[in-house]
Amino acid sequence: MKRAVLLVDHGSRRAEANELVETLARALLSRVDRIVKTAHLEAAEPNIEQGIDACVAEGAAEITVLPCFLAPGRHTIEDVPAQATAAAARHRGVIVRVAEPVGTHPLMIEILRERLEETEGD
Amino acid sequence: MKRAVLLVDHGSRRAEANELVETLARALLSRVDRIVKTAHLEAAEPNIEQGIDACVAEGAAEITVLPCFLAPGRHTIEDVPAQATAAAARHRGVIVRVAEPVGTHPLMIEILRERLEETEGD
Repeated sequence: MKRAVLLVDHGSRRAEANELVETLARALLSRVDRIVKTAHLEAAEPNIEQGIDACVAEGAAEITVLPCFLAPGRHTIEDVPAQATAAAARHRGVIVRVAEPVGTHPLMIEILRERLEETEGD
Repeated sequence: MKRAVLLVDHGSRRAEANELVETLARALLSRVDRIVKTAHLEAAEPNIEQGIDACVAEGAAEITVLPCFLAPGRHTIEDVPAQATAAAARHRGVIVRVAEPVGTHPLMIEILRERLEETEGD
């Protein structure tokens, strides 16, 4: 049974703002034994439906959507799960789960502490 | 010489979206020997000028601005540094540095990996 990860960010009309999720996807691909795809909630393609379709096209039966958003809010609580669920409903038997956003993870504090240290050292 | 950290996020008209930066600030305060304040780039107060002023009012002579943004882009490359520099220029002798955004930190991959693990286990 193949499993996939779909990294979803907000999306922007600026190409360079959409690159972070691609960079994260490449790094994650080397760390986990999963199909890894990316999508954007708004303003850029692939959108979530296209991202879910791409996972299924590669044979994924279970898909975990990882919202690359800092704060929990309408986007992570309503929009991403609603679009992911609607997209998955088009594929019989495919399970879709949506993770918590990254910003509330305890390691965020470690990132901030390291950013502080490296910046004060400049 | 007192040092301060100013956590800056995008800011939202929704109070709950502005809470993450407060939560992160409280957690960081218990981990580093710094004055810790928060500010929002747009849409909510305190803004960056008010945040810098609050640090200086508590005696900070060096302030590190930590942008709580995922992707590098106009906000982190131009807007946050420009507002922070302008605010600092009003306080003679105060040094302001601006860190890289959190999203490009290597630990982001670890957060995504843990989010995947905890969500697939549901």
